[in-house]
Parts: sequence; structure tokens; C-alpha cells
Amino acid sequence: MSQTYQCRIYVTLRPSVLDPAGTAVESGLKQLGYQGVQQVRIGKYIELTVTAKDETDAKDQLDQMCEQLLANTVIENYRFELTPIQSEVMS
Amino acid sequence: MSQTYQCRIYVTLRPSVLDPAGTAVESGLKQLGYQGVQQVRIGKYIELTVTAKDETDAKDQLDQMCEQLLANTVIENYRFELTPIQSEVMS
Repeated sequence: MSQTYQCRIYVTLRPSVLDPAGTAVESGLKQLGYQGVQQVRIGKYIELTVTAKDETDAKDQLDQMCEQLLANTVIENYRFELTPIQSEVMS
Repeated sequence: MSQTYQCRIYVTLRPSVLDPAGTAVESGLKQLGYQGVQQVRIGKYIELTVTAKDETDAKDQLDQMCEQLLANTVIENYRFELTPIQSEVMS
């Protein structure tokens, strides 16, 4: 049995890292009249499906993918959620 | 009374729009050995705080911000979540 999971990965800058894009968006929003906006931080949102033996295997793979490619862990944090989407019988 | 909300905004490409960045990441992940990965789509994740009269007001402001600046609604969808973080008494 293998299982396919729908995964949602959130990659955000660490709080100590400056976010010039977020600052630019915040100033843009204020110029548009949204005075109540603060602390804008921009991150990445990645959706993908993973086929794995089980949920633990899928989570391990996602951790490795984030460490190796999807996030720069020196300056970014990541977190993810996964939900099973279909069962397949392996031949 | 005004209320400050922590908001998380997700901006994703519409399903009908090609995502070359997602395709590149998918091929990168496969080259790293993650053969079970499919349907990689890259979006934006924006965190901000909004101070507004109430939750309806905050949601209205977020809708307008997304339409005006944060998302390109021709090719992107957006959704958001908000949670109250603190109460303030307006003078």
C-alpha cells in the first residue's frame, strides 16, 4: 500500500531577518489608505502531492525536501500540513 | 473599541495558469530522488496585522487589499484567515 498526500508548505523568513519586500508592501498598502496594517512579512507557499508508504515517511520526505531545496534554513523557517487524498494498491 | 487581527493570506495561481516555477521545483526535487512528488505549485504567503473596528471590517479591508495590491486576480486566487490578537480601547 502506498498513500498520496496533499501537502501545503509554508516558508517564512526568520523573525530576526529583515524583509524588504514586506516593508515595501506595507508602505504600498498604507499609501492606498490601509493605515491599520502592520508587520507585513512575505513568504512562500508551496502545494504538492507526495506518494509515500505512510504519513511518517511522507513527513520525513517533506522535511528533507525543505532542508535541501525548498527553504534556506539559515534565514527561513518552514512548516507543513498534509492530508491523505487517495489510496493505491502497489503491484 | 478596535481590534487587531493576525492575518495569513495565501495567494495561489489559478489552476488553469501554467506555473513554470513549480515545474522547475518539481524537476529539481525529482533529480534529488523524490520520485513521489507531483503537482508542485508555488504561491505567496503573506502575514500581516490589521487593526479594524471588528472582524467584518477587517475581512472587508483584506478583500480590498488583495484585489488592489496583493493578488493579481486575473491569474491568481487568494484566501485568508484571521485571528484576533489584542483588544485596544480607542480614545
